[in-house]
Amino acid sequence: MSRKIIIDTDPGQDDAVAILLALASPAEIDVLAVVAVAGNVGLHHNANNARKVVELSGRREVPVYAGCSRPMRRTLVTAEHVHGDTGLNGPVLPDPIIPLQAQHGVDYLIETLMSAEPKTITICALGPLTNVAMALVKEPRIAERIQEIVLMGGAYFEVGNITPAAEFNIYVDPEAADIVMRCGAPITILPLDVTHMVQSTKPRLDAIKGLGNKSGQAVYDMLTFSEGFDLKKYGWDGAPLHDPTVIAYLLKPELFAGRVCNVAIETASELTVGMTVVDYWHVTDRPRNANYLRSADAEGFFALLTERLARLP
Amino acid sequence: MSRKIIIDTDPGQDDAVAILLALASPAEIDVLAVVAVAGNVGLHHNANNARKVVELSGRREVPVYAGCSRPMRRTLVTAEHVHGDTGLNGPVLPDPIIPLQAQHGVDYLIETLMSAEPKTITICALGPLTNVAMALVKEPRIAERIQEIVLMGGAYFEVGNITPAAEFNIYVDPEAADIVMRCGAPITILPLDVTHMVQSTKPRLDAIKGLGNKSGQAVYDMLTFSEGFDLKKYGWDGAPLHDPTVIAYLLKPELFAGRVCNVAIETASELTVGMTVVDYWHVTDRPRNANYLRSADAEGFFALLTERLARLP
Amino acid sequence: MSRKIIIDTDPGQDDAVAILLALASPAEIDVLAVVAVAGNVGLHHNANNARKVVELSGRREVPVYAGCSRPMRRTLVTAEHVHGDTGLNGPVLPDPIIPLQAQHGVDYLIETLMSAEPKTITICALGPLTNVAMALVKEPRIAERIQEIVLMGGAYFEVGNITPAAEFNIYVDPEAADIVMRCGAPITILPLDVTHMVQSTKPRLDAIKGLGNKSGQAVYDMLTFSEGFDLKKYGWDGAPLHDPTVIAYLLKPELFAGRVCNVAIETASELTVGMTVVDYWHVTDRPRNANYLRSADAEGFFALLTERLARLP
Amino acid sequence: MSRKIIIDTDPGQDDAVAILLALASPAEIDVLAVVAVAGNVGLHHNANNARKVVELSGRREVPVYAGCSRPMRRTLVTAEHVHGDTGLNGPVLPDPIIPLQAQHGVDYLIETLMSAEPKTITICALGPLTNVAMALVKEPRIAERIQEIVLMGGAYFEVGNITPAAEFNIYVDPEAADIVMRCGAPITILPLDVTHMVQSTKPRLDAIKGLGNKSGQAVYDMLTFSEGFDLKKYGWDGAPLHDPTVIAYLLKPELFAGRVCNVAIETASELTVGMTVVDYWHVTDRPRNANYLRSADAEGFFALLTERLARLP
Repeated sequence: MSRKIIIDTDPGQDDAVAILLALASPAEIDVLAVVAVAGNVGLHHNANNARKVVELSGRREVPVYAGCSRPMRRTLVTAEHVHGDTGLNGPVLPDPIIPLQAQHGVDYLIETLMSAEPKTITICALGPLTNVAMALVKEPRIAERIQEIVLMGGAYFEVGNITPAAEFNIYVDPEAADIVMRCGAPITILPLDVTHMVQSTKPRLDAIKGLGNKSGQAVYDMLTFSEGFDLKKYGWDGAPLHDPTVIAYLLKPELFAGRVCNVAIETASELTVGMTVVDYWHVTDRPRNANYLRSADAEGFFALLTERLARLP
Repeated sequence: MSRKIIIDTDPGQDDAVAILLALASPAEIDVLAVVAVAGNVGLHHNANNARKVVELSGRREVPVYAGCSRPMRRTLVTAEHVHGDTGLNGPVLPDPIIPLQAQHGVDYLIETLMSAEPKTITICALGPLTNVAMALVKEPRIAERIQEIVLMGGAYFEVGNITPAAEFNIYVDPEAADIVMRCGAPITILPLDVTHMVQSTKPRLDAIKGLGNKSGQAVYDMLTFSEGFDLKKYGWDGAPLHDPTVIAYLLKPELFAGRVCNVAIETASELTVGMTVVDYWHVTDRPRNANYLRSADAEGFFALLTERLARLP
Repeated sequence: MSRKIIIDTDPGQDDAVAILLALASPAEIDVLAVVAVAGNVGLHHNANNARKVVELSGRREVPVYAGCSRPMRRTLVTAEHVHGDTGLNGPVLPDPIIPLQAQHGVDYLIETLMSAEPKTITICALGPLTNVAMALVKEPRIAERIQEIVLMGGAYFEVGNITPAAEFNIYVDPEAADIVMRCGAPITILPLDVTHMVQSTKPRLDAIKGLGNKSGQAVYDMLTFSEGFDLKKYGWDGAPLHDPTVIAYLLKPELFAGRVCNVAIETASELTVGMTVVDYWHVTDRPRNANYLRSADAEGFFALLTERLARLP
Repeated sequence: MSRKIIIDTDPGQDDAVAILLALASPAEIDVLAVVAVAGNVGLHHNANNARKVVELSGRREVPVYAGCSRPMRRTLVTAEHVHGDTGLNGPVLPDPIIPLQAQHGVDYLIETLMSAEPKTITICALGPLTNVAMALVKEPRIAERIQEIVLMGGAYFEVGNITPAAEFNIYVDPEAADIVMRCGAPITILPLDVTHMVQSTKPRLDAIKGLGNKSGQAVYDMLTFSEGFDLKKYGWDGAPLHDPTVIAYLLKPELFAGRVCNVAIETASELTVGMTVVDYWHVTDRPRNANYLRSADAEGFFALLTERLARLP
């Protein structure tokens, strides 16, 4: 039986690849909806990009919602310097035909979780956690109905990518991340510690381009565009591939390793705001609230990704 | 023409008096709805109390909504030690007949503000600001459509009443208060600085009891109950009367005096969290975001209150 | 038997009046030394001013030391806008003849406390608490040898005078104040709550000028200069007289009223840094570390001050 | 010409090895004094251990001072669980004969720096930075007279070792570390990022034991004792060797690599207090105040250490 998920996302090239990976895996994953949130770029672009990506996959029956256009307390910080002005620069994708759903994404999350069997729906969070946190505040009873929250965000063994202490997704809405971390639902975290092990080197990108299908070409164009920032900053051979690890974890958890421990979010100090403080060695008495993954099998990951992308148009 | 208001509230004896004062003043104030929020006691009690008070006023056409049952980031702190276990101890009021509306209070706020003419609806916030802040995050466009937010909360020239630094309404959800303070809508604040000048002394309470109507008796019973805490703590002759000042300000702003200045909410330090830091003398360069009232004409206030309560059943 | 005190100070007109009041009261107070600290103006000026004031009193045997020229962690903030460029603008006082002692003020504090009988020396702190805190860190054993620390600083029932939340002396070196508050020695605090009750109105100043002696004229000239700032800001009839309350408390404690309770210093948040958070009603479980005075008999205070100043040259 | 250094330290097995390495290298390094500070264990033990180690080296002419027995603002945290109850468990060393100097270590630092030619003395800080910071506050003019502060402390690419966010030396006195980081003197930092690359594996320890001299045996016994904690926690083959990297850097800077950038100390938030936030990629506009080293040539380091230890008794 396939696992029901809602993808909460701010596409973003790597978000797009994650969505494609999920939509290419219907045997294992049942994507109930894609919900956009402000993050990499503004909500309008992110929602538009989500629709484009769903269309690219050929899965037009998957509804797309728009959630929050701003973080809970902070002014929105975006990352056009990484993703381009539309958030999905690189490939040329047609304007989407499928509509944006009228319902607010936060209400979609609440309604779906409250009406489904408890513990049957997983939230895959690929962007700032605003929508998820807002749903938890508006309807706290969803916490015990969520099967799992699997999210890309944070960094501990690796350092921050937006400030010296913080990873982008958490930094954009640290209060939302704090709410999610303390909500009581099972949480699995794919941080930079994992995603920096999963680099889109030239051979790996070439393999995807070599699939010869439209989706492979689009993924190649996306990642070739977005990797520029990291390659220049770090001098690496390939950029980290962030969000698809969330879907890969659902498909093949054995590709990843980590530990259940406490993860707390810094919200009090401007110097370190948005940091994910991981008590990996249980040196504090804080509760073990998250499955914190810190390593990945990069070869296995790219093999999985490439194989699945081959199934798409 | 009467002013359209939505009362956001956690009744609470003094909230109840505020609601009655508003409902007793239809010529000046058009109460569109009462929305409950968690605060003095849990949401369930607050919503129930709101319905009881609306019924007591005889204004059964005013709908009552329930909003958020928890603060945005913090664990709910309540004040049964002041208000009693139901939040409205004191009078014996019948179980309410009027229904609780099905729509979430946050969505009611958003829908009402988005569908009305801009700048025609005032929010009177008598409890923690969770509902208002959640609406602002979920639909940021309401900020410029709100006529005014008039709220009871905070303290500057007076000291805190729940911690040494913080007043209860702000302390319960300081992140929500911070969001509201920075939202851009016109804000007027009735802090403890004002409400401590408006004390329910025995002669003033006797005058209300002496009205001889059901509402007067209920108000007397409410305030006699809730004032016990303050009288014991401070050794005063009468307890401050908080929330009705919000409505009195709408009816007779000339009873109050203050200054437009910056009001900022402490959220970073546990020692001072929830403090309302008021730049009354403009010594910082922070923006002038609120009309901060610091004094009241107590005689005028009680005269107004007593006169209006006389109009009720 | 007279009480041995060390005056730690940043004169400052009101510091100067405090020093004069102490030096005019040899029957009750034995001034071992005056130690300067950076604060109202830089250390050089403050030390120079201390020497001028000691000379003005005719008590050239009292040694003057210079302590720290900067706060422990913060950049020095000064108040030339209140005190003038020399820190003691107003009167014309001759250049001092008595020398500045060579020993560092912090070492003088430590050496004196360690060599005297325990609990026989009181520190009267009229400026930022840098020297006292530095001594406590450098030689922690002095904590149990101090008879009492009586300090002017902080505000609770009154609001801050340098920022919306903080009083100047504490704000300049909040970390030092925090160290002092938690040192375990007996502490008495004369905050703005007290000093705002002790205003140098025209009749009171005229009485001092009318003494006809050199010291009375100098005090009149000092206070006439420094009160300008407060009169303009607050629109009062007389400016608060801060530091002399410390000495008046030693001479006549019955002029003041307060309560032993917890006083904590805000150091974590920039919004409220330097605030003295007073748990006057014991609502927290923080330890009762200070005798916090909140009111004064202004007539009694000025009568005492005037009577004593009359004894000086 | 040899470089004049003052070693400020809380020995500590690895501190002891650092002291021995310096004292074994008189051609390059002139150890003016060893100054103890509270840290790994209390000041009394640390000062005693410093004397033992100086005696072990046969360099009894090097004076030992005791500085501060407590951090500037925090309660002292010690690490007996790593270093044993005396701080130097492992070898059996005779009670020291050389005296502890009477002068306070902070005053020794100040006096020495103020009386020497500017920029001729380097401070090697191997423990909490209390003494150095206290000297900077007590006599700010030393900042421009220090040639360099080379310190072991902090972590950025590696994670904390005392809390999830903080390294021990910085955590014990974060306010002191903050003062040092912002003092303006040249600073070089040897963080866990470096020291975790320099592990005392069995072959490396055996080589030191194999030297056959008293010092080699003592170092072997020290490191065999103290490595137990790390081996158990991390499951490594050898424990990191922290403090000797500071001396190795003076002897052979080419063994290390890093970058001049901003290093800031977290002091505001309890969650992350003591963290060294390194702006390694210059993404903020904070000033470049430190030479932050992040890697070491472990083989070269141990070759140097072993070769120098061979020169000792």
